[in-house]
Amino acid sequence: MSLKSLLSKIEINADMGEAFGRWQLGPDEELIKYIDVANVACGFHASDPVTLHKTVKLAKKYNVAVGAHPGFPDLTGFGRRRMELTEQEVADIITYQIGALKGFCDLEGVPLNHVKPHGALYFYLKNSRSHCVAAYKAIKPLGVPVYGLGGTLHEQVAKELGIPFVPELFVDIEYSKEGALIPPAQSKKITPQESAERARKVAETASNFAQGGGEVRMPEFGHADNGGKCKPFSICIHSDLPGAENTAIETRKAVDELNAKLFPHA
Amino acid sequence: MSLKSLLSKIEINADMGEAFGRWQLGPDEELIKYIDVANVACGFHASDPVTLHKTVKLAKKYNVAVGAHPGFPDLTGFGRRRMELTEQEVADIITYQIGALKGFCDLEGVPLNHVKPHGALYFYLKNSRSHCVAAYKAIKPLGVPVYGLGGTLHEQVAKELGIPFVPELFVDIEYSKEGALIPPAQSKKITPQESAERARKVAETASNFAQGGGEVRMPEFGHADNGGKCKPFSICIHSDLPGAENTAIETRKAVDELNAKLFPHA
Amino acid sequence: MSLKSLLSKIEINADMGEAFGRWQLGPDEELIKYIDVANVACGFHASDPVTLHKTVKLAKKYNVAVGAHPGFPDLTGFGRRRMELTEQEVADIITYQIGALKGFCDLEGVPLNHVKPHGALYFYLKNSRSHCVAAYKAIKPLGVPVYGLGGTLHEQVAKELGIPFVPELFVDIEYSKEGALIPPAQSKKITPQESAERARKVAETASNFAQGGGEVRMPEFGHADNGGKCKPFSICIHSDLPGAENTAIETRKAVDELNAKLFPHA
Amino acid sequence: MSLKSLLSKIEINADMGEAFGRWQLGPDEELIKYIDVANVACGFHASDPVTLHKTVKLAKKYNVAVGAHPGFPDLTGFGRRRMELTEQEVADIITYQIGALKGFCDLEGVPLNHVKPHGALYFYLKNSRSHCVAAYKAIKPLGVPVYGLGGTLHEQVAKELGIPFVPELFVDIEYSKEGALIPPAQSKKITPQESAERARKVAETASNFAQGGGEVRMPEFGHADNGGKCKPFSICIHSDLPGAENTAIETRKAVDELNAKLFPHA
Repeated sequence: MSLKSLLSKIEINADMGEAFGRWQLGPDEELIKYIDVANVACGFHASDPVTLHKTVKLAKKYNVAVGAHPGFPDLTGFGRRRMELTEQEVADIITYQIGALKGFCDLEGVPLNHVKPHGALYFYLKNSRSHCVAAYKAIKPLGVPVYGLGGTLHEQVAKELGIPFVPELFVDIEYSKEGALIPPAQSKKITPQESAERARKVAETASNFAQGGGEVRMPEFGHADNGGKCKPFSICIHSDLPGAENTAIETRKAVDELNAKLFPHA
Repeated sequence: MSLKSLLSKIEINADMGEAFGRWQLGPDEELIKYIDVANVACGFHASDPVTLHKTVKLAKKYNVAVGAHPGFPDLTGFGRRRMELTEQEVADIITYQIGALKGFCDLEGVPLNHVKPHGALYFYLKNSRSHCVAAYKAIKPLGVPVYGLGGTLHEQVAKELGIPFVPELFVDIEYSKEGALIPPAQSKKITPQESAERARKVAETASNFAQGGGEVRMPEFGHADNGGKCKPFSICIHSDLPGAENTAIETRKAVDELNAKLFPHA
Repeated sequence: MSLKSLLSKIEINADMGEAFGRWQLGPDEELIKYIDVANVACGFHASDPVTLHKTVKLAKKYNVAVGAHPGFPDLTGFGRRRMELTEQEVADIITYQIGALKGFCDLEGVPLNHVKPHGALYFYLKNSRSHCVAAYKAIKPLGVPVYGLGGTLHEQVAKELGIPFVPELFVDIEYSKEGALIPPAQSKKITPQESAERARKVAETASNFAQGGGEVRMPEFGHADNGGKCKPFSICIHSDLPGAENTAIETRKAVDELNAKLFPHA
Repeated sequence: MSLKSLLSKIEINADMGEAFGRWQLGPDEELIKYIDVANVACGFHASDPVTLHKTVKLAKKYNVAVGAHPGFPDLTGFGRRRMELTEQEVADIITYQIGALKGFCDLEGVPLNHVKPHGALYFYLKNSRSHCVAAYKAIKPLGVPVYGLGGTLHEQVAKELGIPFVPELFVDIEYSKEGALIPPAQSKKITPQESAERARKVAETASNFAQGGGEVRMPEFGHADNGGKCKPFSICIHSDLPGAENTAIETRKAVDELNAKLFPHA
C-alpha cells in the first residue's frame, strides 16, 4: 500500500448530506449519479441523524463510497468559523462524528471509505501540527485514508503517522500561481467544460491553469516521481456551487476517458 | 443464549458520563469502583465528545463494561422531556448516539456491552410499540442486549425481535404494590443498608418491599419459571441521588455475597 | 380597544426569517412586498442572530409590522415536534425569544406588533389551558395582541386575561366542515385565484368553502355579532408552500379591494 | 455623566446564572447576598430561559443590579473558546442575548444595568478594534455602561463612541508587574483576607500587589487624574473560584468601610 494514495484510478468526490432538518442544501440526488465518493456531513456543522441515514442509503443505492466529513460544532456557522479547540477536543469531535456516521454505515453494510475534515476544521489542522497530529492519531486506527490538498501539513502528518493520503484536485475553482486554492468568492466562475479541461490537463501534465494566466505545477499528481506517469487522485466538486450538476457531468466524462487511457487495468 | 438475559450473575449498573462541558454531574470517579456496568450518556441529553472519551477511559481503567445510554436531543431538559419524534427519528437518533459512543469504544478497545435508553426516551419506547420496534430494529444488528424493566413493552418487543433483554432492579427507590417504579421525587429515601437489603430480598424471594407496606412480586427475577432459583439480573443505582456512593458500597457487598452463594460458578 | 382585535382592516401576515445560518427557507424578499405583518422566527426553531437582524431590517424597509413567532427549542425538528415542557418552561422560552427579537426591534426602531406561537408550540397551547395561561401571562405585559385561530382555547384565554386577540384566516389550505384547519399535507392544492376568492368569500359572508364540498361558517370574522358587517381579521399565507408569492399577489389585490369597500375610513 | 464611570462608589460584581438546565454552577444563592451587581449569562455559553428568569428574580429579591453577560454561542466550551465571527455576527449575538435577558428584566420590572462580554468574547473584543466597535455600536443605544479592564481597547472604544465605561478590579487573582490580569490557573491562591486587602490597597493607593513581589500602578482607579482621590470602580469576584463566598464576605466588609470613608455622600 502506498502512503500516497489508496486509489487505483482517478475518482470524483463531493460533499453530501449537508441538509439540516427542514433545510435542504445541495443537489445530492442529482450529483450522486456522477461521483465515486461522498464526503458525508456528520451532524456538527450540518446534517442530523435522519439526514445522515438517508445520505448513507442514497450513497449505497448509487454504489458511491462513503467518507466522513467531520466539522466544528457550529451549525449556525456551517463549520466555517475557526474555533480554538484544544488538541484533545479536536481529536474527540472527530472520533465522535466518525463514530456517528459509522453507526449508519454499519447498519447499512457500507464500509467507511475515508475521512476529510470540513471547512474551518480542515484549515485548523492545516495550520497547527499538534492539532493535525492529534486528529490523525484518532483517525489512524480506522485504517482509512485522509483526503486533502497535497503538499500541506495534512499530507506531511499523514505520512509521518503512516496514514494513507489521497491528494485532491479542485476543478471548479482557481489556483494561485503558487498553487494555493483560491476561495470560491475570489475565484472566477469556471464552466463545466473548463472543469473537465482542468481534470484532463492535470492528469496529463501535472500542471494546472493559474489565476491571472500562466500555469502552476501540481507535483502531487505525479509524473516527476512516477516515471512521467500520472498518479491516481481524487477530484473534488463543490456541491454548493451553482451548476454543480453540470460540472459533475462534464468532469465525469473526462475522468472516465482519462481512466480508460491512463489506468486501463484498474 | 437465553433471550431473557446474557448475564451469568447479578451485576450493578449506573449512569455515567452525564457531565456536559464545564458542568459536572454525578460522582463518577467514586461510583465506578463499585459497579460492573456503566450506562454512558452519548451527547444528546448530556455529555460531549471529550466527556465521552474520558468516561470510556475511566470505565476501561476500572474494568467496567460500557453500554450506550441514548436520549432525546434535549440538553436543556436533560432528555427528560417527552418529544414526539417519528419512528424513523427515534431509530436514527439511537443509531447516531450508539455510533458516536462506539467510536470511543473502538479507539479504546472496549466492547459495547448493551443499550439502555435514557429518561423520556425510555418511557416513550415503553408506551409506543411502533417506536419501540423501530428503535430495537436499529439496535439488533449490534448483537448486544437492551436493559430495562421486566414485564414491559421493552421486554416484549425485545423477545419478539430476538434481542437479549436484561431485567433491571432499582434498589434506591420504591416500587408500588402493582410493581411500578415510583418516580424519585415521590419515593421515600432509602438508606444504603436498605438498598442492600432490597437486593438480597429480591434475589432470594423474587419479591420486593412495596410502597406503603406489604410486598410486590417481581417474577422477572426468577424462581417461578426457574425451578425456584433466582435468575441473574442487573441492579441500577441512581448516580444522581444523594448518597449514591454509599448505596453502591453497601449494594456491592450484598451482590458479591449473593453471587458467591447463588452463582458460584459464574 | 376591543379585545377581539386591534385591527382596523383586513391584513395579510406570513412567517418570515425562517432561514438558519447557511440554510435558506422561504421567498422572504419577494413575499414581503405583498404582506402587512411578518411573524419572525426567533432562533429556537429557526433563525439565528444575523438572520433575525436582517429580517427585522427587511420588514422595516417594506414598512411591514414585526411580530414574534416563538417556537419550541428544536432546530432539527423546526419546532414541529411536540415537547412536553412545564408551564414555567413554556412561559420562559416565550419571554426569551420575544426579548431576543425585541433586541433587534429596539435597535432598528421598530415596534413589536404581536405574538404568534409557532408550530407544535401553537398546538401545545391550544390543547392545554394551564400552558396557554402561563404563556399568555408572560406576553400580556408587552401590550400586544396574540394571533391565532378563532374559537380556540387561544382566543378564550386571551379574552380572560384581557389580551387582544387577532383571529386568523388561512386562504391557502382547506378547512373541514367543522371549521378545523386541514394540515397542509392533507389539503388539496389551492390556486392563488382560489386563495383570493376565499378571502373575499369570508369577508363578505363569514363562511368559507369546506373540504369535500359545502360550506363552513366562520363566525369569528363577524356579521352575526357585528350588525351584519365583517370584522377586520388577519389572513395568513404559508410562506413555505409552493407558489406562495403568487398567492400573496392575488390575495393582496382582493384584500385591497375588500378594505376599500368594507373599511373605507381605516 | 462621566464617560469613565456611572458609579458613585465602589461596588462588587460577580457572574451569576451560569447553570444550564440540569447542571448547576456557582454558589449564586449565597454569593448574591454580598454583591451589588450580577453579570447574568444569557443562554449562549451558559444558562437557559428558566435559569435566566430565576436569576433575574434572585437579583431582584436581593436588590442586586442586573447586567448582561453575553458570550460566544458555545455551550460545550462555556464560551471560553475563541470563535472567529465577523463584526456583524459579534454585534448580532450581543443584541440577541441582551434582548433575551431584557425580556426577563422587563417582565420583572428590573432595569438593565450594564453589559460585560464573557470569556473568549471579552478577549476577542479586546484584540480587534473592528469587532469591538461593532459590538459597542449595538450596545450604545441601550444607554448602559460596559464593564471591563481599564487601559484596554474596551475602554478606548467605549470613550470614542461615548459609552460609559466602568473599570473593574479583580481581587481574587494576581496581576503581573505590567498590570495584566493573570489567568486563574497561573495565579497563586488569594485568601479572602488578601482579597479584602487588595480592595483597600487599590482604593487607597491606586496600586496593587504584583505577581512575584513588588507593586503595579492602577491609574484607572484614580488619584493622579482625580486630585489624589480614588474614583469609584467595580470589583469582580470570580463566582467559580473555590471559597468565592468567603472572598465576597471579606471584600464586602472592606468595600463598605471604604465607601463610608471615601464616598460618604454616595
